[in-house]
Amino acid sequence: MIDGLEWIAVDWGTSRCRAWAMGSGGVLAEAHSGDGMGTLARDGFEPALLRLIAPWLGADPVEVIACGMVGSRQGWAEAPYRTVPCPPADGTTAPAPAQDLRLTVRLIPGLRQLDPADVMRGEETQIAGWLAQAPEFDGVLCLPGTHTKWAQISAGEVVSFRTFMTGDLYASISGHTVLRHSVGDGWDEAAFADALDTALAKPEALAARLFAIRAEGLLAGQAPGAAAARLSGLLIGAELAAARPYWLGQNVAILGGASHVARYATALAHQGVTAQTAEADTMTRAGLAAARQHLKESA
Amino acid sequence: MIDGLEWIAVDWGTSRCRAWAMGSGGVLAEAHSGDGMGTLARDGFEPALLRLIAPWLGADPVEVIACGMVGSRQGWAEAPYRTVPCPPADGTTAPAPAQDLRLTVRLIPGLRQLDPADVMRGEETQIAGWLAQAPEFDGVLCLPGTHTKWAQISAGEVVSFRTFMTGDLYASISGHTVLRHSVGDGWDEAAFADALDTALAKPEALAARLFAIRAEGLLAGQAPGAAAARLSGLLIGAELAAARPYWLGQNVAILGGASHVARYATALAHQGVTAQTAEADTMTRAGLAAARQHLKESA
Repeated sequence: MIDGLEWIAVDWGTSRCRAWAMGSGGVLAEAHSGDGMGTLARDGFEPALLRLIAPWLGADPVEVIACGMVGSRQGWAEAPYRTVPCPPADGTTAPAPAQDLRLTVRLIPGLRQLDPADVMRGEETQIAGWLAQAPEFDGVLCLPGTHTKWAQISAGEVVSFRTFMTGDLYASISGHTVLRHSVGDGWDEAAFADALDTALAKPEALAARLFAIRAEGLLAGQAPGAAAARLSGLLIGAELAAARPYWLGQNVAILGGASHVARYATALAHQGVTAQTAEADTMTRAGLAAARQHLKESA
Repeated sequence: MIDGLEWIAVDWGTSRCRAWAMGSGGVLAEAHSGDGMGTLARDGFEPALLRLIAPWLGADPVEVIACGMVGSRQGWAEAPYRTVPCPPADGTTAPAPAQDLRLTVRLIPGLRQLDPADVMRGEETQIAGWLAQAPEFDGVLCLPGTHTKWAQISAGEVVSFRTFMTGDLYASISGHTVLRHSVGDGWDEAAFADALDTALAKPEALAARLFAIRAEGLLAGQAPGAAAARLSGLLIGAELAAARPYWLGQNVAILGGASHVARYATALAHQGVTAQTAEADTMTRAGLAAARQHLKESA
């Protein structure tokens, strides 16, 4: 049991679950597990959450607010998508059923875009967190990760967004194609910059450049870290080429983990764009806190 | 034992080994296994070959000619790359050591290109087979597969070539990214054509179109077969965009298996290119036979 526990913030994605015990002054404790949405049946969510947070609970009821894939059709309960353009969070939540009477669980819905078809779950909460501390922000948010999102923000609303599978592609190509023999530990900043420039200057050549990573390894002894940087540069470059309307001449902020933020900030700086940055987990908690505030105000 | 056995043709790649018992009139028998180069240590090649061909052998010595990854540094013995521009086969082979005194094994070297760096092993033999029956051919050969090759041919030589990981990418993306939930059995020719046109018209948009396959499945109920056709169309379209100098206004022939040939022929026909076609295995055997002829003439 934790003294001063006011509520619990949860970021529950496909592959993992993270929970924070929140007090009036901020984070009291943190816990995480690999019990992602992808590994759980509907009746597995409550036990998985209790494994993480039971040590924090006393006799009193506590409010849990969660975002991410936990609210998808395959999640704990479905929190149906809201359709853009709309604010990233408007206080709408869906209740999730809990047997433990101490728990009141609310799930934040994701966003969808009808044309071109696109969806997000979890990033809307980071965006809400960003807007909670920068309500006048007008520009573009980049949220890099397995499925990087670029979102156009204006007047407190998500106007449009686009998803790029860059992280997912990197993992599958470096792990499951012939490039798995070439890509390894290490990093080469010059190779990253060169690949980035190549992909941006000639995006149509991407398909040809990938096998060249293998051939350079065989014929020129390219180091595994240089191959990793080159693959990352090609994929982020292809993403930037496709996302150009989102960043060219725009006011851009990157919300992400430290290594993602550094990589994308470097890539954008090469294109003359100086981006603001913020830490993704902090934004997620701020967005969950804003959702809780909405709930209290509408109660 | 097979009457009339003159020699044995072998196509030995990373993931499988195929052997043909050859007589004066052509193929007498065929055998294959999953004992690819990737699964074998150096001393595993001879036993793996004998498991396939032992039933064909009598007391007499027999000549085995093999192409593919069996001649790589990790293969049975290394047949060092020849460097383009050069004929696809010039009679150079490397001997592979065999304990069984009935076997004389020769490996055909692959080709390499120094700039841009590229390599092939196995396809040079298909190209030699094509040129054995069309010695005057001047144009471009497309050899689709896990690693599709485009080769520019002139005056009996491979002038340049380029590799595209299209098949490898399709397998890794459809099997190991979020698209594995969307892509499935079936096919949709209209979705293939549409994705192909999209990728060729706006190659820079590729990265954005991939996740749309997932989103279309979630929001618009796109069928698994349509998703498969769309992914294939995007990747082949990206390949054609990058390989444009190889096919635009060129005399093109496609050497491959039936389904690959059909897909690439359709894609090229959409771009106004009518390609000749030939069956890959037939070309491989013709190339191995030409190599054997070279060996006999130089003996």
